Amino acid sequence: MEKRTEIATLGEFGLIHHLTDTIRLKNESSLKGVGDDAAVLEYKEKQVLVTTDLLLEGIHFDLTYVPLTHLGYKSAVVNFSDIYAMNGRPKQITVSLGISKRFSIEDLDDFYKGVRLACDIYGVDIVGGDTSATRTGLTISITCIGEADKDKIVYRNGAKETDLICVSGDLGAAYMGLQLLEREKQVFNGEKDFQPDFSGKEYLLERQLKPEARKDIIDMLEKAGIVPTSMMDISDGLSSELLHIGRQSQTGCRIYEDRIPIDYQTAVMAEQFNMNVTTAALNGGEDYELLFTVPLPLHDKVADLKGIKIIGHVTKESLGNYLITRDGTEVALQAQGWNSLSE
Amino acid sequence: MEKRTEIATLGEFGLIHHLTDTIRLKNESSLKGVGDDAAVLEYKEKQVLVTTDLLLEGIHFDLTYVPLTHLGYKSAVVNFSDIYAMNGRPKQITVSLGISKRFSIEDLDDFYKGVRLACDIYGVDIVGGDTSATRTGLTISITCIGEADKDKIVYRNGAKETDLICVSGDLGAAYMGLQLLEREKQVFNGEKDFQPDFSGKEYLLERQLKPEARKDIIDMLEKAGIVPTSMMDISDGLSSELLHIGRQSQTGCRIYEDRIPIDYQTAVMAEQFNMNVTTAALNGGEDYELLFTVPLPLHDKVADLKGIKIIGHVTKESLGNYLITRDGTEVALQAQGWNSLSE
Repeated sequence: MEKRTEIATLGEFGLIHHLTDTIRLKNESSLKGVGDDAAVLEYKEKQVLVTTDLLLEGIHFDLTYVPLTHLGYKSAVVNFSDIYAMNGRPKQITVSLGISKRFSIEDLDDFYKGVRLACDIYGVDIVGGDTSATRTGLTISITCIGEADKDKIVYRNGAKETDLICVSGDLGAAYMGLQLLEREKQVFNGEKDFQPDFSGKEYLLERQLKPEARKDIIDMLEKAGIVPTSMMDISDGLSSELLHIGRQSQTGCRIYEDRIPIDYQTAVMAEQFNMNVTTAALNGGEDYELLFTVPLPLHDKVADLKGIKIIGHVTKESLGNYLITRDGTEVALQAQGWNSLSE
Repeated sequence: MEKRTEIATLGEFGLIHHLTDTIRLKNESSLKGVGDDAAVLEYKEKQVLVTTDLLLEGIHFDLTYVPLTHLGYKSAVVNFSDIYAMNGRPKQITVSLGISKRFSIEDLDDFYKGVRLACDIYGVDIVGGDTSATRTGLTISITCIGEADKDKIVYRNGAKETDLICVSGDLGAAYMGLQLLEREKQVFNGEKDFQPDFSGKEYLLERQLKPEARKDIIDMLEKAGIVPTSMMDISDGLSSELLHIGRQSQTGCRIYEDRIPIDYQTAVMAEQFNMNVTTAALNGGEDYELLFTVPLPLHDKVADLKGIKIIGHVTKESLGNYLITRDGTEVALQAQGWNSLSE
């Protein structure tokens, strides 16, 4: 049997010590981390980026199929992704947890293992947080602080008519991964020793359970000397994010169905589930890819970049936001997204 | 009947728009707030302070007697308090909420009204956040960012032997206010129209329901040219905070029972409840007063400051941490605090 140490055996201060004792700061901008009323950072000539995410058990994650280490990793990475989406670099995070008695110290260690791994890979320091009891479930609140050069921050409101619309990686895989996990959960509910067979579907699971933030794309754009006119990360689905950029830039768009990057496993899985793979790519969410626009004269430069696909172009606002399907039909884009509040 | 608009009628983006539409940024360091993947701040030669708090229904607050506007106000203020405790000034907050269907848009408006009032009074900008559904209850996660001059930040680890130990305001009132509210709740549970009589106890209720952060004390110390050697805010109780400073500064302390500032209402209420008022002041928590140490030669200067009381002095670590009672007995200080995890 696995070791289980009750959190109450450490007490609140003991727990904080246990979780933070071995944290060492890596970044020049991290002057003082855990242990005072506030962390102390120094950003000098850089501008400071701040983003925050609240993740709740039963709404954003299901611990029946999400290992805690993966959850810790993902919780950190989705925040890093928001900082990259501004063309910045994540540098610090604070991690606040609300935990019920169901969780042991070993569980928390697993969660923190994931957070720390993400922080090590992306060069981010844990500088603070809060740990508290909850009546039920697990609550995760992470705030990420990052830096960017003043003249290189990219907002959602800078897209211009004729700009090219680009996305990194491929879309819809995280959503198909979720469908897969949900199906296995339903089919085998109750059979404790059952190990579902996910072979050939590893990519979908990885995209759902252990997504990465596209630091590499930001590095590549920098190296190529490209500053997008607008950018955001795709967390709610391509459709919804395009409408955000359109609304804030006062522009419209045309994207082409046959240009949307979709992985082979995503397409196969969609067929198995009898789902439209384009719908999954447009509305699935949790891809954490980058959606950005660049001026038309950069076409050849961008077309050459590995892992980036040009999917359409920016139009006048009055022309609306449309997908051009494979047969040439124009379909209005809708902000389906993940609307957890109206469910 | 009060108006009740279901949150689902607005949807997630509609809700965010509703809550943030009228936010205007006040601070020079707040360049861009809500509406992108991250907020953008500029701190130039100042250092950046970051603190975060997670507040959970049923653990940190009880909505049967805490009005949502007060809760919003308090949630913001307790974070400001952490920034002042570093001798800094709060400038930005992010507000993340997890809300169940129990809450209406009017409820959220009430909560935000309190947050905004606090932000207006303390000169802080709301620059971001996250809003999500929960299965049950209300979850509040606030992160506060502030600034401080590099050479004026005060940590917990700077106390020196012979330093004077000072506290602002008075202690134990918030705890007695909580006892009062809990008693009324138990006595009159179920009687909907009952209005408890709190006359003569307004101060205790205000300290519990609508605490203030001691911006005025930080201003006063600055004006007097005093930079404390160590400081923190009293959120878990004087005892626990003194032990934090002692552990981090590698010092001990002697404080004097007859020097601990206690308001008249606190003393009266403690007697009514048959409680030791010193225990309430030492372990009650939620006072949000400032505890700080200053070098001995500043004695006369500090003794002259209104609203500050010298309660003891810092000793060698080997001498331990003790309270000298009115009859001269030495009692070891204990970190009782608020240990929500072991309850």
